[in-house]
Amino acid sequence: MDIAQLQAALATYFAPWVQALGLVVEQADDDGVQLRLPQQAQLAREGGMVCGQAMMAAADTGMVLALMQHWGTFKPCTTVQMNTSFLKPLAGQDGIVQARVIRVGKSLAFGEIDIRGANDQRSVCRASTTYALL
Amino acid sequence: MDIAQLQAALATYFAPWVQALGLVVEQADDDGVQLRLPQQAQLAREGGMVCGQAMMAAADTGMVLALMQHWGTFKPCTTVQMNTSFLKPLAGQDGIVQARVIRVGKSLAFGEIDIRGANDQRSVCRASTTYALL
Amino acid sequence: MDIAQLQAALATYFAPWVQALGLVVEQADDDGVQLRLPQQAQLAREGGMVCGQAMMAAADTGMVLALMQHWGTFKPCTTVQMNTSFLKPLAGQDGIVQARVIRVGKSLAFGEIDIRGANDQRSVCRASTTYALL
Amino acid sequence: MDIAQLQAALATYFAPWVQALGLVVEQADDDGVQLRLPQQAQLAREGGMVCGQAMMAAADTGMVLALMQHWGTFKPCTTVQMNTSFLKPLAGQDGIVQARVIRVGKSLAFGEIDIRGANDQRSVCRASTTYALL
Repeated sequence: MDIAQLQAALATYFAPWVQALGLVVEQADDDGVQLRLPQQAQLAREGGMVCGQAMMAAADTGMVLALMQHWGTFKPCTTVQMNTSFLKPLAGQDGIVQARVIRVGKSLAFGEIDIRGANDQRSVCRASTTYALL
Repeated sequence: MDIAQLQAALATYFAPWVQALGLVVEQADDDGVQLRLPQQAQLAREGGMVCGQAMMAAADTGMVLALMQHWGTFKPCTTVQMNTSFLKPLAGQDGIVQARVIRVGKSLAFGEIDIRGANDQRSVCRASTTYALL
Repeated sequence: MDIAQLQAALATYFAPWVQALGLVVEQADDDGVQLRLPQQAQLAREGGMVCGQAMMAAADTGMVLALMQHWGTFKPCTTVQMNTSFLKPLAGQDGIVQARVIRVGKSLAFGEIDIRGANDQRSVCRASTTYALL
Repeated sequence: MDIAQLQAALATYFAPWVQALGLVVEQADDDGVQLRLPQQAQLAREGGMVCGQAMMAAADTGMVLALMQHWGTFKPCTTVQMNTSFLKPLAGQDGIVQARVIRVGKSLAFGEIDIRGANDQRSVCRASTTYALL
């Protein structure tokens, strides 16, 4: 699936509230899928920092797209578990969400997500996820 | 802090996108803070299931309120880590988010969150979190 | 399965290095399986605190026994994921490991483990786990 | 700290039960610390697979050494949280444990660990950890 197809999938398979994150698919290649999480006032807490809730939602969403890219199509799957670490605040810049498929088995898939600042390229958030294929 | 104060804190300390979840504080007592996550089309994926991103956001938000209740006031803190397990889908009913403070130390606080169906009372999501006091 | 059968399972299904923890099955009832992790010099770091590695191993082991109790027999399954939080040190006392099955589906099972001090009854470690049925 | 110093630290700072894993420090460089987890009957469950408990213990231990390498010395710290995903079984070969420091702040440090088969170089286990500096 190419960038345009993945961007279209964002509008098809995700809840409107998730779409409100404004995620933009920027790359889709052997290193997984890369999305931009645009800086927006509605995602910021006091102090201008992007809220952690938005980063978790972007990470999970990025991973679903990375699985679609891996399979070349949408397959029904469900997030079983996600663990997220918040390394430092993200403020005053977009976030870049890099989602990588680590392993896909018959019934389970594993992925890892890194979110970094678009300007300073510093990692701010790491997540690991498990998906069950339905 | 009573229910009204915690509800007011939701409008003060959280990003507008988090406020769009429509969380309602329903209880605040020795068992922590309980919120209602109302069923809404904007939170649902195809098939009417509440998206996991909304449950993670509700869990994290509930825990911040439970810490405020514990301290009796807002204190600056940041989510260090959150781990979420999705046990079964939530569909066709509101969610009840129960956030409990497990331990508060000098620099770290730990909490656990359960989300269950408001109608069938079955647990759909469990999360554990670590917060750093700033 | 009763306490004696679960204790026997510890010697049958677990690696010798895990058996060296000296876990003792103390209860098996509707609240899951309870094990004692005896205080031992070989499990302690400098300062006499039980090492976190031993607590993670005890938690995972306790959960496998809790699943056996749930099913009434051993079924092949594998740990997919375990998340552990260390709340405070455990020192100068045995640990009590309480493993509870949270949900068992067709292909996945979820559990939660609490480890507390046998003397002061204070929780020192919490874990949540996901198992895949093979 | 060089390989010999890190190997010596294994005998100084870790519980005897952890030392029984037989971990061997093989590299220590800009990519963190690499340990070998030797294949041993005492670490295997029925079927010859290395038990998950041993992989979690090796991952946590590797990360403490990676932090020592980062600081150039031992500093008192404690594991706050560790999340481990088990991707596939490890059997019939040693494990290679690669521990990387992701971020070190004033009071918290974050790390990631990958365990792969020494022969087939395939990743079998991923862990992410949070440490608190005391």
